[in-house]
Amino acid sequence: MNKIEHIGIAVNNIEFSGDIYQKLLNTTVYKIEDVASEGVKTAFLQAGPNKIELLEATSPDSPIAKFIAKRGEGIHHIAFDVTDIVAEMARLKAEGFVLLNDVPKKGADNKLVCFVHPKGTNGVLIELCQSV
Amino acid sequence: MNKIEHIGIAVNNIEFSGDIYQKLLNTTVYKIEDVASEGVKTAFLQAGPNKIELLEATSPDSPIAKFIAKRGEGIHHIAFDVTDIVAEMARLKAEGFVLLNDVPKKGADNKLVCFVHPKGTNGVLIELCQSV
Repeated sequence: MNKIEHIGIAVNNIEFSGDIYQKLLNTTVYKIEDVASEGVKTAFLQAGPNKIELLEATSPDSPIAKFIAKRGEGIHHIAFDVTDIVAEMARLKAEGFVLLNDVPKKGADNKLVCFVHPKGTNGVLIELCQSV
Repeated sequence: MNKIEHIGIAVNNIEFSGDIYQKLLNTTVYKIEDVASEGVKTAFLQAGPNKIELLEATSPDSPIAKFIAKRGEGIHHIAFDVTDIVAEMARLKAEGFVLLNDVPKKGADNKLVCFVHPKGTNGVLIELCQSV
């Protein structure tokens, strides 16, 4: 894995939280993007080589809405940048990790992504992402 | 903030989870360190410019023991690398963030650290750290 690409944080309102994280990181939200397929609106901030992705649910059955209903706002996932997502998925599968999708799917920020089931990673939802 | 220095993950057993994260990240645990003042044992793995810090409680009143008792294993905090922690603490305080310590304290991995209260950051425990 090349680096932490981003950390996804589930929030109720990306405008409100965007303002908080702008102050925290002393930077600006550089992109807001709707990912209709996931039922989320996202806001991105940069911290050196890494990003913070704020996630707001746009429908009540979005994974983010369910996460917040169960656990409250907070860190939702860690995404690692990979060079070859298909090869990395095969490697992790062979190591016994459970992948949440069989083929890479299109995520936010122009990435191909795949999620790893948190039951095999101490409760941490891991995302692999490859720039396309 | 220069980058995500590390992500802290609360686990029951750093040997067991160290093995999982070695497979996940395709790397090795390069350091195990006891931080007696925090009641934790830590294991570090590298992912490019970033680190994963696994945290195991060494006493029942450790913050990590309490975290796991309440929420189960999972992501405990995000640490950002800063160049001048005293200046950054003053900046955040002026922005209205609540700091959990008034002066930097000695953390794992030869760092000066300060934590920001999660109630002001959407439930996310933020650590600032400066290499010394």
